[in-house]
Amino acid sequence: MEADTTASAARQQSLREHNLALVARTVLRAGTPPSRAAVAAGTGLNRATVSRLVAELVAGGLVAEEAPVSAGAGRPATPLRPASGTVAGLGLEVNVDFVGARLVDLAGEVVAEQIETGDRRGADPAATLSRLAHLARAVIAQAPRVRIAGAGVALPGLVRHDHLLTAPNLGWQELRPRALVLEAAPELGHLPMVLGNEARFAALAELAAGPDESFLYVSGEVGIGAAIIKGGTFFTGLHGFSGELGHVSVEPSGPRCRCGARGCLETFAGTQAMGSAAGLPPGATPADLASRLAAGDVDARAATHRAAVALGIALASFVNLVDVGQIVLGNELGTLTEHLRPDVEAELAGRVLAARWAPPTVRAATAATHPALTGAARAALEPVIADPSAWIAQG
Amino acid sequence: MEADTTASAARQQSLREHNLALVARTVLRAGTPPSRAAVAAGTGLNRATVSRLVAELVAGGLVAEEAPVSAGAGRPATPLRPASGTVAGLGLEVNVDFVGARLVDLAGEVVAEQIETGDRRGADPAATLSRLAHLARAVIAQAPRVRIAGAGVALPGLVRHDHLLTAPNLGWQELRPRALVLEAAPELGHLPMVLGNEARFAALAELAAGPDESFLYVSGEVGIGAAIIKGGTFFTGLHGFSGELGHVSVEPSGPRCRCGARGCLETFAGTQAMGSAAGLPPGATPADLASRLAAGDVDARAATHRAAVALGIALASFVNLVDVGQIVLGNELGTLTEHLRPDVEAELAGRVLAARWAPPTVRAATAATHPALTGAARAALEPVIADPSAWIAQG
Repeated sequence: MEADTTASAARQQSLREHNLALVARTVLRAGTPPSRAAVAAGTGLNRATVSRLVAELVAGGLVAEEAPVSAGAGRPATPLRPASGTVAGLGLEVNVDFVGARLVDLAGEVVAEQIETGDRRGADPAATLSRLAHLARAVIAQAPRVRIAGAGVALPGLVRHDHLLTAPNLGWQELRPRALVLEAAPELGHLPMVLGNEARFAALAELAAGPDESFLYVSGEVGIGAAIIKGGTFFTGLHGFSGELGHVSVEPSGPRCRCGARGCLETFAGTQAMGSAAGLPPGATPADLASRLAAGDVDARAATHRAAVALGIALASFVNLVDVGQIVLGNELGTLTEHLRPDVEAELAGRVLAARWAPPTVRAATAATHPALTGAARAALEPVIADPSAWIAQG
Repeated sequence: MEADTTASAARQQSLREHNLALVARTVLRAGTPPSRAAVAAGTGLNRATVSRLVAELVAGGLVAEEAPVSAGAGRPATPLRPASGTVAGLGLEVNVDFVGARLVDLAGEVVAEQIETGDRRGADPAATLSRLAHLARAVIAQAPRVRIAGAGVALPGLVRHDHLLTAPNLGWQELRPRALVLEAAPELGHLPMVLGNEARFAALAELAAGPDESFLYVSGEVGIGAAIIKGGTFFTGLHGFSGELGHVSVEPSGPRCRCGARGCLETFAGTQAMGSAAGLPPGATPADLASRLAAGDVDARAATHRAAVALGIALASFVNLVDVGQIVLGNELGTLTEHLRPDVEAELAGRVLAARWAPPTVRAATAATHPALTGAARAALEPVIADPSAWIAQG
């Protein structure tokens, strides 16, 4: 009988954990703060169980109560929302022109952030990841009362588990970034750390901030990446290497790309390529290009036209192959959306076979600056939401 | 009580139907003919139930028994296989250089077939679909003892439900092919009819005949289509319009394509484009091109090289975006695989960012000539396999 009692206790325990996760998910991912009654209705659990589980989540610092709202004759309902400033994910990013660290809490608010701009092409990986570790330490020190759930590291290249296989624009190959971060900051060794492609993490931020559940997210900086989100989840491909839009061939004998091939989209529509075609000095930003465009600068117009046509050609291939409906331009490229749109849409209309029946639309991303930092932080919070019992037990 | 009895009877009935479908699927999709014992083990049903359901399927003409096989000391086991020549799907196809009809039975064997070659570019839709109806009638007449489950119609263009939206190489737009077929052969009106893109149906045939569960199928004839199969099912995209490989831009200012755009893959690697670049007369086939290649003809080599490079560029974009591992060259293009492979693989190696870690492979399709006819016929048989009770009850 003892074995049975143990098994039954385990089942009870596991049921409690399951229900706690269900309630956590319902509150933490809700659009508008639900009441306990709404949580009960949404989960199918009874009111008493919901109240008990909500109390655990409030005590554990995952959920907070807003001021009660009177709704007609009944007892006022207390809206529940993600707790602010209690638990955060640490988003880290190495990109071509900056390294950064950002703490994002369960409410999606930025608790602390450090960005260090500067050209990282050809930079030493150990030195760069040591800077990243320094920034991580700094943002953690800025928020001493926040518990850190884990870290997400966004990288501009192909990632497999804890390996960065290649990041052509950095000139990096076959690295283990986590080991290099921990060399510089061994005290981060207790944090779960997940690596990912920056376009994927940026798409995750857009999924949280924007209106759509299905879209192609284009992350445009010096390099260009992309991620396909379908029904709220990633389309990953066979090995997780999908979305390399920047290396779609636009002009087979065009300029040499950092990846070794010729005429990749990045060589026309990467921010550096656009700036240099417009005659801007190295290190100029899309904001500088936008100023020139506003002033009617002819070279800036020609460079933008060339980039938009190239982007339209590559996106048309994407839509012909994968049939996406909504294209979201994000990161630095997103700030130029209105300048790029006419030529991009003209190429899509002319080259997408189904354009007449299913015209793809183009919009700018809604997510904030450096969205991959936010997406990486959110990814680091996911285990807390998926298993709040384990998180609370560790606390 | 009567309502309860009826409900309970309905449940019984529905359980029987469910189990009959389970047993049908297990036998009809098995690699090697299973015994009743193997079916019981595979489905979790008991031996008596399996025997009763198998008897129904044998009586209904869906399953046949092979000669018993002695296996050691026990009673000899009787292998079960799909019945031959009893039930068939009707595959119909209009393509740029032929129309055809093929009856394929549950065992995957061709029961009857009629192919009529000839250039259909710019052909009148009503006249062409009337020819197709004639061929359908002819193959049905060839097999008077076979019950026809339905028809699949393969078309070289974008299909939505019962509409053909566009087939650029035929010059067809916005048609309802079923209505035109039935005008010519009203007696086919009782057949369920499903329309589909020819590359999808061809991929279905390859899935049944070939070794892989995940691949990119490339259907190359005058036009070039493709279908992504992942884990045995289609990746369809948002509207079902994915896989338009033929209209991926290879050279943005290249030759004008029948779709209206410039430099689409079809203008380099479609069979007609290859033949004309090689100086072959109109209507020459890939077999003619292969003879010239075997004879060392310089123009044939140059045309093949140009096509292979273009195909490699377009496929590299596909792999960069969607991350497929296995590329299968099918239909007429498949017959040239060994001539195309070196240049295709060189472009993939040079242009796919992940090529070093996940090199895509290229092979010729295993499925027979005009695979879309077989795939369309198989698609027409699916409802019989999914709900054998309904089919047997109609018989």
